[in-house]
Order: sequence, then structure tokens, then C-alpha cells
Amino acid sequence: MVNYLGVDSVRQLVAQVGLAPLLERLVGEIEADYRRWDAFDKSPRHAIHSAVGVIELMPTSDGQMYCFKYVNGHPKNTADGLLTVTAFGVLADVDTGYPLLVSELTLTTALRTAAMSVLAARHMARPGSQRMALIGNGAQSEFQALAFHHLMGIRELRLFDTDPRASAKLVRNLAALGLSGLDVRVCNSTADAVRGADIVTTVTADKRNATILLPDMIEPGMHINAVGGDCPGKTELHPDILSRADARVVVEYEPQSRIEGEIQQLGNDFPVVEFADVVRDRM
Amino acid sequence: MVNYLGVDSVRQLVAQVGLAPLLERLVGEIEADYRRWDAFDKSPRHAIHSAVGVIELMPTSDGQMYCFKYVNGHPKNTADGLLTVTAFGVLADVDTGYPLLVSELTLTTALRTAAMSVLAARHMARPGSQRMALIGNGAQSEFQALAFHHLMGIRELRLFDTDPRASAKLVRNLAALGLSGLDVRVCNSTADAVRGADIVTTVTADKRNATILLPDMIEPGMHINAVGGDCPGKTELHPDILSRADARVVVEYEPQSRIEGEIQQLGNDFPVVEFADVVRDRM
Repeated sequence: MVNYLGVDSVRQLVAQVGLAPLLERLVGEIEADYRRWDAFDKSPRHAIHSAVGVIELMPTSDGQMYCFKYVNGHPKNTADGLLTVTAFGVLADVDTGYPLLVSELTLTTALRTAAMSVLAARHMARPGSQRMALIGNGAQSEFQALAFHHLMGIRELRLFDTDPRASAKLVRNLAALGLSGLDVRVCNSTADAVRGADIVTTVTADKRNATILLPDMIEPGMHINAVGGDCPGKTELHPDILSRADARVVVEYEPQSRIEGEIQQLGNDFPVVEFADVVRDRM
Repeated sequence: MVNYLGVDSVRQLVAQVGLAPLLERLVGEIEADYRRWDAFDKSPRHAIHSAVGVIELMPTSDGQMYCFKYVNGHPKNTADGLLTVTAFGVLADVDTGYPLLVSELTLTTALRTAAMSVLAARHMARPGSQRMALIGNGAQSEFQALAFHHLMGIRELRLFDTDPRASAKLVRNLAALGLSGLDVRVCNSTADAVRGADIVTTVTADKRNATILLPDMIEPGMHINAVGGDCPGKTELHPDILSRADARVVVEYEPQSRIEGEIQQLGNDFPVVEFADVVRDRM
């Protein structure tokens, strides 16, 4: 029989293990997979776009296990009380082709995205980073806030969203957790939020070539965790930020990022580093 | 909530509606979709191959609905009491990206493959066809036999399989149905089965470049329903059959068939016709 892991089970798991230890284990698992990056059969994900959103399939295999994730991205959904991003996935046995597990991946994707951001920052942000700007304050921003606070020692969060209600909701949600040692401030602009930050995390959802970050906001040594640019025609960074002489541009999987990462704004010969190489240089 | 259609529900549906009327409705639905072929966002399916099998994802959308099928192909499974092909799929709302239905597609794939074969034969086999050779006598062959008998008026079936037990099982299963007007005969070779047939259906599963049909077996006017050549390196027809001067080679979706259809044996400029064009020429 195929096992089913529902959203209630994942919620229960988070409650049992605790969010911070669970994220820490996720970081470890993700890092372990980058260390065996070549073991995976990879391809750019399959996306079908409509005027209002995208539906994607992300399959891979390590030769023993096969899995795929189904995920949608529909920014307008929040206006109707629906989630922007929902996901589920299947794990299957390569030897028989039989599915073993069906899992909700909406909550899991939120956790994984935050854990991945922490992993990237651990390898690339400057040591002792304490202040993070968080641009875009929707559902994913809370996971980013908590992951960076608990796992990376972020003590100051500077928030900005074009919708002040989103920032207010994030502030309320974080306050309700009664965290000690986390100062949260809502800023009046992206520039205000970014100024003096060690880490800048952008988690915006608009399906367009946005320039959330402009070149003059960027200070030397900042680590930019650009999460939201994940579709053709959807970016968050002004291209001049990427082509700065002192910038190292790191992507997860180059063939996919050429299609739908920030680097879609630049030529196909624009030099990038794959994150697995960053991880493996540290081994 | 997402609806679930399990294999028991599909079985019940077949029992309620009756196999022949259900297949007839399937043929009609499939044909209707070919008539609006341009409405679909199509791409070659995504396949991950291992030494023993393949796992595939087949997504598409018509702008209103999105769907994908997960399907495996593992010929060795039957030796372990498992199915060669199992499948499930999801239907989703393009407007929200939310899944609407999860369905078993193992039985549905078997029904659909047979219905599709009938639809192709209706448009391309000679009128009054009565005799069909059925090469490869595994699970799918029974659906082919019933569909062609009930919907296309096939009255003579000539069977061959390299495993005589497969043919014997098919004969038993068909006999148990007590069909009138269907003569079933097991032959000693493919050549023997094919001789004098109006329609030749090949449904073999070996993952290799096989030449189940050889040029000297083919008689003018035969309709070849080559079902099993569905992976890179997996074919059923000798290439000289395809390049006969009097052959019209019809594929479903050219970009996919170039990768994994019979025409993978020929150059990329080998001329083919897409089935949707055959259907629409008849409108």
C-alpha cells in the first residue's frame, strides 16, 4: 500500500520535534544531498503557465528512489482566501516503479525553502551576521524569519512589503511566539529595510520582472538570498546587481536558472557557480 | 477537498456502464480532444530510466484544466507478481492551481490505450476489417482484443507471444467471457499470426530495439497498430517497414515520437503525419 503523509501529520511532526530542531535536520539532509549532487538525474522542472499562475512538476531520482513535486504559484489566490503556493509529492521505488509515499508538500515546501536559505547563508553570508532585511512579508517570510533567527543567530529583522497589512500580520505572528532576542521593525521602503543589513532576503511573488533590489541599495559583503525569482519573466534583482565586479552569483541548478532564475536577465554566457560546488569546496 | 477515484470505483464504473459502451464513450472523448489538438499545452513526457524500467510524467493543460499522469514501465515486475504498468494522475484547476481529483490510472490507462487503438484503426484501417493479429499477449492484449471485437467488428484473432503461457492465459480469459462471433487462435510464430490479417497489433514490453515485425510479413493495405515502442531504444518494427513507399506513418505527437516512437530508428527529417491531422481531415 502507498503511505500518505497529510498536512496534519507534518504539523504534528513540527510540534513534536520542534521547529528549530526540525529545520536543523532539514538543513543537514539538504546539505548531504548537495554533497552527492551528481547522483541525481536532474532536469529543469516542467512548467505550464497561465495568465494567473503556474503549475510545475519537479521530478528527480538518485537511482534508488524517484520523486516528484507538484507545486502551483498563484499570487492572486490570497485575495480569495486560498494559498499562493500549494504542493504535494510522491516518492517511488525505482526498482519496481511503484509509488511508496504520497505526501502533502505545502507546509514541507515552506520549511524546505527556509532551510535551504539558511544552508546557503551558512556557506556564503559573512560570519556573525545579525541583521536581516526581509522584503516581501507573505506566508514564506515567517518561515524565513524563524529559520534565520533560530539557526543563523539573526537578532534584527527589518521588514518591508508593498502591502502594509502583510508586514503587520508577520509582526503579529512573530510577536505571538514570544521570541527573545529578536528585534522586528517594519520599514517604510525596501531601501530603508536593506540599509546596513548583513543578509537581504527577498520573498516576493509577483509574476513579473520586478527590481525589488536596486544597485545603490547593495553594500559590500551583503549576502542576498533572492528566493522569489522563480519563473520566466519573474525576477527580483536589478541585473546590474548580478554583474557587479564583486558579486559571486550562485544558483542551484544552472540549466533551470538560465530559464527562470535571476540570471534569465543576462546572457547565457554570464558566469555562475552551482551551489553544490560551493558546498563541496568546503568538504 | 480533492476527490479520489480509486481502482475499485473505476472497476465499478466499467461494470455499471459495460465495457463496450464505456470504451465507445472513451473513443468519442479522445477523438473530441484531437479535434481541438491545438488547445493543449504539449511537451514530450518526462522520463527517468533505470536498468529495469522507466518512470514517466505526462503533463498537459487546455488552459482550463491541468492534468498529469504518472506511469511506470517495468517488464520484470510480472515475474514478481507485480504489474508492468501502473499509473495514477491528478486533475487541477488552472485558475487556482489547486488539485481537484486524484485518480488511479492503471486500469484507465489500459482502457484508454485500447480505445485509442480503435480510434486510430477507425480512421486508418481498411473498412470491413475482420481479422487481427495480436502480437504480445500480456495484460494490455486482452483490452485490445475486446475493444477491437466490440467496437471494430474483429471476428478473428490470431495470437502470438514468445511466452506460450501468456497466450494461453489470454485464450482462457477471453473464453471465460463467452463472446459470440470471435474466433481466437494461437499461432506458432509472428509471421503465422500476421499472415492475411487486416490489422496487426503489437503490444510487447521488452525495453530494446526489437524487430517484432519484419518487412516480408507486411501485406499491402494492412493497418499496423504498433503500441509497444514507447521508450528510447524500444521499438517493435523493422525500420524498412516504416520506409516502404506505400507506408503512411502516423504518430500522435511528433516531438515525443522522435525521441521514443518507432521513428527514432530513422532520421529527424523522416516524414510523419500527426494523428490529429488525420482526424481533422475527416471533419
